[in-house]
Amino acid sequence: MDENVLGIIAGVFTSASMIPQLVKVLKEKNVEDLSWITLLVLITGVSLWVWYGILKDELPIILSNAFAVLVNISLLTCYLIYRK
Amino acid sequence: MDENVLGIIAGVFTSASMIPQLVKVLKEKNVEDLSWITLLVLITGVSLWVWYGILKDELPIILSNAFAVLVNISLLTCYLIYRK
Repeated sequence: MDENVLGIIAGVFTSASMIPQLVKVLKEKNVEDLSWITLLVLITGVSLWVWYGILKDELPIILSNAFAVLVNISLLTCYLIYRK
Repeated sequence: MDENVLGIIAGVFTSASMIPQLVKVLKEKNVEDLSWITLLVLITGVSLWVWYGILKDELPIILSNAFAVLVNISLLTCYLIYRK
């Protein structure tokens, strides 16, 4: 299989897996079970992967991790808004 | 920065971010809030990333995603054991 096609498919799966969490938080406005440390570590990690993808010039890596940065920054924003 | 070093650091961050979830489930033996669909989609996605890493011969991609496969299979196993 073409490597880029494989990377795009892999990226769609790992990106899709994050959506239910964001939908759940937006719907229930409940962030009790979220860990902001986990979110910060994850945002740092996926941002570094974007940098790695840019250095390696690999679009699937850049796109899927940039999406993950957005989702996790959204979750962190929800955390700051909805925490009690 | 050397690309492989960057990839390893990125992998350590994204891998580390998964540990709290696994520890929480093992400690509380409560999987009520886990979604097995999310876990299955994630296991599929990270497995495809391992395949991508093998095709591209990129060790950071292979290692961090292989770790993610292990963590998520462990979570799915916990789900099957602890669900009510």
